[in-house]
Parts: sequence; C-alpha cells; structure tokens
Amino acid sequence: MTSETSTSGSSGAPDAVLAPLEAVTRRVGHGNLAERLNALRSWLADDLGELERAIQATTDIGETLTEDAEYGELAVKTARYLLARPGKRIRPIVVTLGARLGGRGLDREVRDLATACELVHNATLLHDDVIDEGTERRGAPTARVVFGNSASVLAGDHLLIHALQLVEGVGYRRLLSSMLETIGEMVTAEAVQLEQRGRLNPDRDVYLRVAQGKTAGLFRWGFVAGATAAGLDGDTLATLGRCGNALGIAFQLMDDVLDVTGDPAVTGKDVLADLREGKLTWPFILASEVDSGLLPLMRDSLLAIERDPGGGHTPGELALRILERVRATNAVAETRAFAAAQAELAVKALRTLPDSVSRRALEAVIESAVSRTA
Amino acid sequence: MTSETSTSGSSGAPDAVLAPLEAVTRRVGHGNLAERLNALRSWLADDLGELERAIQATTDIGETLTEDAEYGELAVKTARYLLARPGKRIRPIVVTLGARLGGRGLDREVRDLATACELVHNATLLHDDVIDEGTERRGAPTARVVFGNSASVLAGDHLLIHALQLVEGVGYRRLLSSMLETIGEMVTAEAVQLEQRGRLNPDRDVYLRVAQGKTAGLFRWGFVAGATAAGLDGDTLATLGRCGNALGIAFQLMDDVLDVTGDPAVTGKDVLADLREGKLTWPFILASEVDSGLLPLMRDSLLAIERDPGGGHTPGELALRILERVRATNAVAETRAFAAAQAELAVKALRTLPDSVSRRALEAVIESAVSRTA
Repeated sequence: MTSETSTSGSSGAPDAVLAPLEAVTRRVGHGNLAERLNALRSWLADDLGELERAIQATTDIGETLTEDAEYGELAVKTARYLLARPGKRIRPIVVTLGARLGGRGLDREVRDLATACELVHNATLLHDDVIDEGTERRGAPTARVVFGNSASVLAGDHLLIHALQLVEGVGYRRLLSSMLETIGEMVTAEAVQLEQRGRLNPDRDVYLRVAQGKTAGLFRWGFVAGATAAGLDGDTLATLGRCGNALGIAFQLMDDVLDVTGDPAVTGKDVLADLREGKLTWPFILASEVDSGLLPLMRDSLLAIERDPGGGHTPGELALRILERVRATNAVAETRAFAAAQAELAVKALRTLPDSVSRRALEAVIESAVSRTA
Repeated sequence: MTSETSTSGSSGAPDAVLAPLEAVTRRVGHGNLAERLNALRSWLADDLGELERAIQATTDIGETLTEDAEYGELAVKTARYLLARPGKRIRPIVVTLGARLGGRGLDREVRDLATACELVHNATLLHDDVIDEGTERRGAPTARVVFGNSASVLAGDHLLIHALQLVEGVGYRRLLSSMLETIGEMVTAEAVQLEQRGRLNPDRDVYLRVAQGKTAGLFRWGFVAGATAAGLDGDTLATLGRCGNALGIAFQLMDDVLDVTGDPAVTGKDVLADLREGKLTWPFILASEVDSGLLPLMRDSLLAIERDPGGGHTPGELALRILERVRATNAVAETRAFAAAQAELAVKALRTLPDSVSRRALEAVIESAVSRTA
C-alpha cells in the first residue's frame, strides 16, 4: 500500500486533471461552457507548469548548496532522482486551488507552500522505500536501489528540512505547526505499519489509522494551507480540512484498487511484496472477511516462497492465484464504492462554499482522483 | 568518527562537568571560593536533573502518543532506547548556561530549547547508525541492532519532528529557522561523509567540513538559543555563536583522540569500522601526512579482512598494527593541541563578555570537553 502509483507518461498530471474537469464542467452546465473550460484548462496548465519548475528548482545544486557545491551533493542528487520522475502533483495543485478559492493567485508564497507539500510527500516516499525495501517507484527503480539506502535516508531528511524551511519562510505560524503535526502523524502511521510486519492481520481499524496518518493528513494540510494564505475564515478552513481528509482516504483506497486490478507493469507494484511486509490493503481486508480460505492461502504462499524461492510455483503464479480469489469476491467493487463515498463527502463539503471556478476545479481534482487508472 | 562516545557510569555527566569546574574556579581564584563552588555545583546538578527528566519525558508514551496509545509506539520505543542510555548532555547544559548568562533560569521555554538540542543530536545518531551500520553506541548495542534499521529511521524522524515542535512552540522565529539550517548542514555533512565511503582520502578540508556540519553547528545553535531566550543582544549572540562553533570542533577532535587512545571496550568504538566507512579522523590524517606507508597499510588491512575474514590476521591485530603506526607519529599530541587551541578560542570569545558565575560555568564546560577521558 502506498499513496502513489506510477504515471504512464511524462506529462500525465495535466491530462489526468483536465479530462474529468471537462466532464464536471459539462455536467454543471454553465452558459458559456466552452469559454470557461478553455480558461480553466490554460489556468491549470499554467499553474502546473509553474509548480513543476518550482519543485525541480528545489534540487538545483546551485540554489540549495551554494557553499558546498563540490561536496555533499549526494543527498540532493538522490532527492532529484525521485523528484524528476513524473508524479501526479495532486498535492501542490490542491494547495494552489485552495489559495485561488480565496482569490489569491500562484504567487511566491503559495508556490512555496505547494512545493513544500510535494516535498514532504517525496521525503516520506524516500524513507518508506528504505523501510519497505521497495524496488520500484514511478515506473523506475527506487532511489535506494540506484543510490543506496543511506543516500535515500539523507535525501528524505534533506527534503523534509527543505520543505519546513519553505513553510517557515512563508511565515504563517499555524501552518508550520500543523505541518510538523502532520509529519509526526505520518511517522506514527509508518510505525503502525512497521509493527504489522510479518503478520497478516485484516484489521479495518489499523488500515484506516495508517491511511489517515500516511495519506489523508497531508491532503488536509494542503487544502488548508492554500486557503490560509488566501486569508479564508476559520469555518471555511475547517470545511476544506474535512474535504482534504476525505479526498486523502479516497485517494488511498483508489491506490489499493489499482494495485489489485492494474497491470503490474503499469502500477509498478508487487502484490506479494506488500503481503510480505504485512500490508493488507482494503480489498484484501474485505475479501478475507468473506473468504475464510484467503488468509491461509496468503500465508501458505508466503511460506512456500520463503522455503523454496526457486521451486514449485513462481511468485507470479502465487500472486495471481491470490488476486483471483480477491477478485472473485465483491471486494474491489466495494472498495471503489467506499472511495466514491469519500469523494462524495469531499465534494459535499466543498459545495457548502460559494460557487466559483476554483471550487469547480477542486471538484474536478476530486473526481479525477477516484476515476483515475494510474 | 562520531560526535559522541559512551560514558562509563550512569550519572557520568555531572561529575564530568563538575570536576574541571572545580579546577577552573580554583585557578580563577575568587574570594569565597568554597561557597561559590558549592553554589555552582548544586546549581548545575539541579539543572542537569531537570534536563534529564525533560529529555526522558519526550518519549513517555502517554505524553507524545495520546491518541495512538496502542499503535505506532515502535518509533517512540526505539527513540527511548537510545535516550535512556546515559549521554553527556553537554548540548542541553550549554543551552541552559547560555540562558543563565542573560539572567534567565531554567524555565519551561529554556528547558524546551535545551531538550530540542539534545533530541536533534540523538535523531542524527539514530540515522547515522543506520547509515554507518553502527553496532555499538553509549556502551550498548545500537538501536538499529535491537529494533532494526526501519525503526531507527522512524525513531530519528520522530525525534527530529518533536525537537522542531519544541522550538516552534517556544516561538523565537529566528531560532526555528537557524535550527532548520543547522539540521540541513548536518544532513549535508553526513552526505559528504557518505561520499567518502570506500575511499581513504586524508583530506583536512573534508574533515573540517564534516566536523563543522555534523558537530559544531549544533553546539553553535545551543549557545545562541539559550542566550536568545534570555534576550541578550546581537553582538553577544555572535560571540557565543563563535564560542559554540570552536567548542564543537574541539569536542569532535577530542572524540578522535579518544578513539585512538582509549580502551575499545570503554570508547565502544571500532577503528576498522571507521576505516571501512572511509572515515579518516584527524589523527589519521596527520599521521598519514608524515608516514607515507600508513595509507597503504590501511588499504591492505581492509583488503585482507575483506578477502579472508577468518584467516591470517584477526581484525583486532590489524587494527592494533595501524594504531601503533599512528601513535608512533606526533599525530595524537597534535590533535590534542588543535583541540586545546579551539577550546582556547572558545574561552577567549567568552571572556569578552562580563564575568559571571554562568560564564565561568561555561568555561568549565569547555575545559571538561577537552580534558575528558570518555
């Protein structure tokens, strides 16, 4: 289970957002639709381009390492390796749209908050891949495979500190303390997950704690951060926080769906690797609640691979057998439904706010998160 | 090379500070010496006790994990394992004395700043031990040996975030940004060190960069933090910063001396482990500058162990041969002299400030750092 799967193209993010945006705008059915849609499209595309430049700039050696240009590049180089791979950049988009909701454009401060949100996400990916011994991420070998575990730990530390410096520099004290709190919750969630290692414990409560801490918290922060910078009031911030939270859970559930239904070459994931780590995603939890033979099958499969890695069944065959059992239940459809319900919660929360282009763009982002295929 | 060696007793810190304190006070030769000394002694002992309680309290499950009491304890438990071992606590003492220098006692805010300084130090120890595959620390197996690398990475993250929350809570914005900067420099220094892995490169410049980033920066922060909380002026803060910096370099050099001269069972270190990591401490750099056969001997020894771990010479014998060659030069005495010169710089900087009990206590701390035997 991870809060991110790979994207298939180098500019996947804009289209992933813009296609459902079109659908939503069509459904809402405003008068001069074509015009509005074009405005939205160029607006989001411009924002995305600017955010991407800002994100990449954080690992420009010249910028971040002026005094140590010759030495100590390893942490930055390792971080850049991950950041340079295309991600969905949904977190910085959310920060930007939160600011626009309050009438504030993508200025320096908003850009810094948006960048910080993406950097924290990437920092945790770098540490998580060390902890989970992850081998693939965003369709390429993980940073730890290329640069080693040590460099990945340092790269994560580097991004974390850089993100906090960005938030500190912007100067909203509440945003800095909530960012620290959010990161603290991410660490606790990762610890909860680590404690589950070696068990196959289909526990809904554990799953939801982990999803809340590892994924939803940072989405919540992102929604609130942009809106705080735009000076929106406390009630609106609370509404956006709930919205971000629900979107985060939906996002995580959809990751789980894609892990079970997607082509492993596309999602870049290994079902058995998750099981080996003791990570039971939502579809696995639901499936094992109705198919009492599933857990024993998973345990036996893991044991078989452990005892005789080369013999009998290949790991791929074993994974396929397990996946077939999961797919034979209603678990995937129910997980999709749960994700859709969370997305609906998020949209409902949003719709208590005044209608605006930004609000509709945020609705589109939420739609895209639960209709995505990568 | 590390900025910390083990202590031999469970309450080593107060004595390590108080013995030289006595010597300094005697030398300074104040009138009612006995009285002043007694006051200093009980004053420092009280501060140390309070600091120790504050440091331990940061890993009270009840305090830091109220909502997740049942889950996610692993990171905190791992951090506690390291924190519960006696350390010298020189960094929090320095923060406290910096505050007292400006007439501010060990109140809640000063205690939080002092605790944060110690937590950052311990966070980097947890990550460094993962990176360097350290097996022993403070006379016991490292946290990563007991709880695993993953738990150690998370424990380091946890302490780092907790430390930043403490500094953020106290509210001096400049202290938070300088803490982030300091941690960033620590990460860069660790990356410089990592880049040296597998080389035996006796480079004074690399050594000083690493010592500055890994050790001196946090000492500098500690000196400035307490004094900032006490409202001391900018010139005084700059003086104290220079003082902390010099003490940090002296402290690191003395660690190197103890690594070469100390009983391995006491210093808890392995000379060959450092060499294997490509870490050349100052005595090794100086010795290899005058003994051209030393580097080839080190390379050959490492190769011999790598090729045939069980045969020929034991690692202990090889280490002893290398150490004998280092000791045969003037390198250890010169390293001591370098440390003493840095300590003198620190004391000289201090003595530009008005005389006070706190100033003399800080001088004693500096003396203790370069006269220590553990």
